[in-house]
Amino acid sequence: MKLISFMRQGKSSYGLVTGDDVLDLTPILGARAPDLKALIAGDLLGAVAEVARSHKPTLKYSQLSLLPVIPNPGKIVCVGLNYGEHVRETGREITESPALFLRVNESQVAHNQDIVRPPESQRLDYEGEIAIVIGKGGRRITEADAWSHIAGYSCYNDGSVRDWQVATSQWTPGKNFWRTGGFGPWLVTADEIQPNQSMTLITRLNGQEMQRATTDMMIHSIPRQIAYISTFIPLEAGDVIVTGTPGGVGNKRNPPVFMKPGDVVEIEVDAIGILRNGIRDEA
Amino acid sequence: MKLISFMRQGKSSYGLVTGDDVLDLTPILGARAPDLKALIAGDLLGAVAEVARSHKPTLKYSQLSLLPVIPNPGKIVCVGLNYGEHVRETGREITESPALFLRVNESQVAHNQDIVRPPESQRLDYEGEIAIVIGKGGRRITEADAWSHIAGYSCYNDGSVRDWQVATSQWTPGKNFWRTGGFGPWLVTADEIQPNQSMTLITRLNGQEMQRATTDMMIHSIPRQIAYISTFIPLEAGDVIVTGTPGGVGNKRNPPVFMKPGDVVEIEVDAIGILRNGIRDEA
Repeated sequence: MKLISFMRQGKSSYGLVTGDDVLDLTPILGARAPDLKALIAGDLLGAVAEVARSHKPTLKYSQLSLLPVIPNPGKIVCVGLNYGEHVRETGREITESPALFLRVNESQVAHNQDIVRPPESQRLDYEGEIAIVIGKGGRRITEADAWSHIAGYSCYNDGSVRDWQVATSQWTPGKNFWRTGGFGPWLVTADEIQPNQSMTLITRLNGQEMQRATTDMMIHSIPRQIAYISTFIPLEAGDVIVTGTPGGVGNKRNPPVFMKPGDVVEIEVDAIGILRNGIRDEA
Repeated sequence: MKLISFMRQGKSSYGLVTGDDVLDLTPILGARAPDLKALIAGDLLGAVAEVARSHKPTLKYSQLSLLPVIPNPGKIVCVGLNYGEHVRETGREITESPALFLRVNESQVAHNQDIVRPPESQRLDYEGEIAIVIGKGGRRITEADAWSHIAGYSCYNDGSVRDWQVATSQWTPGKNFWRTGGFGPWLVTADEIQPNQSMTLITRLNGQEMQRATTDMMIHSIPRQIAYISTFIPLEAGDVIVTGTPGGVGNKRNPPVFMKPGDVVEIEVDAIGILRNGIRDEA
C-alpha cells in the first residue's frame, strides 16, 4: 500500500493512494487514528486494507497538497557516512558505529513543495536517502528482529547547508534549516519490500544523475541501524530513520554544485517512487 | 512563579508551586491548555496569576511524582563547549558559532527520578546546565529581542554516556540514552530573573562540589544562542535550550569520576533551585 499525509480544507489528513485515486482515510478511521503516525501506532494497516475494499476513493492524488509522510515524528534519526564513496569524498574514515545526528520536524518539506534556500548561505546541497518509518516500537531490537519493526519506506532528501554544517564539529545547524529536508512522496508499506531486498537509490538535479547506489552498499545495514539506535533510545511508531547518502554530493564535486532557485531535485528509489522538490529562495 | 509538570491519577498535569503547596491548574485551565507547553503557547501565564488569587492549593509538592518540566518539547537544543574551562579540559577549541546537538524527549527524567545507567557503559557523566524554555516563538530573533522570547528557566543535567558520545564525530548517541537527562525541578518564570542577571550554577555529586560557574562566563550568551538557533529553525513555545556546562565534568578528572548506582547528583542554580537525581542501573 502507498499511504500519504496531506492537507484537506485546512486540516491534515491521510489516505491511501491507488494510481491517481486517493481514499481519504480520516473520515473513516480518524476517530481511531487522527494521523498516519497514530494509524501505525494503532497497528491499523490491516484495517486500511479492509476499508479499501468497501469504500471508493474520492480524491485525486495529482490535486492534493501533500505533507511530509509523517508530519510529526517523535524523532528523526539520520545516519551519516554510510556509503564508502561518500565517506571517501568527505575525507573521513569509516567508523565501527554509525555517525548519527537528528533533524527536527520543522526542517522537513513534502513532495512537490519547494526546498527553501535561506539568505544566510548559498551552499545548499542535496543528499538522496531512503527513509524507514518505524512500526512496532522497541528497545534493544536485535538485527534479526529489526525488519519486523519497520512500517514502511519512503524517499528522503537530507538537504544540507554545508557551511553551517561544518561551522563546528556538530552538524546540527546545517542539517536543520527550515524546510530543507524532503520527505515523500508516500509510505510504501513494508509488506511490499522484502527484508534485504536490494533497492536502487538515484538523485537527479535538473534531470542529471548526481548519485546512484544500491542498499547493499550500505556500511551499516538497515537492521544494524535499528539495533544500534534502539540500544540507547526506544524506537516508537512513526519514528523516522534516514539511512545515509551515497557518493556524489554537490559540495565535494569539482567544481562544487549547489542547489539554486528554479532547480528541481529528485530522489528516486526503484521500490518506492520519486520525491521531487523545487528550490526557491526564502521570501 | 514556579510551575511544574507532574503525574496525577495516571494522567499528566501541571501546577503552581508555593512553598510546599501546589495548585493543580489542570482542572481550572486544562480546557484551554492541556499541558504546560500549551499554557505557555497560549500566553496564559497571566491567567495563572489570576487563578491563584481565587483558588486554594490542594496538593503537597513533597508528595507529587514530577515530570520533566516540559515533558513534550518540540525540540531540545543543547549547546556544547560554552564555558572556557570546559573547552580547555576537552582539548577542543573555542568556535565562533556554538556547537549544537539535539536531545529527544525520551532521554529526559524529572527531578527526584533516577538517572539510569545502561548496561552498555559505565561511563555515565553529569553536566550541570541552565535550561531556557521558549515562550513566544520566532525566527531570526535578534539578540536585543531575545530576552522577551523566554518563558522561564530551569536546571538541567545533560547526562552523557562518554564512550558512546565519542564513538563517532557526532555526539548524538551518548547524549540520548534513555532517562539520562535531568530536567527540573520547576520552571521559574522569566519575570523573576532579569535579563543578563548573573546566575551561579553548581553541580554536586554525593554532596561534593564538582562544577561551579556564573552565567557571565558563557562564551555564547543566552541572547546569542537564541539568535543563532532561530536563524536556521523557528523557535516555538515550549522549546528547550540547554545552555552548556562549565569545567569539571567527571571524565576529564584525574582520575576520572563516573556516576554509579546509589549516587546522588544535584544541579543548583541560585535563582532557580536544585535539581536532584539518584542514579540506578537499568533493571
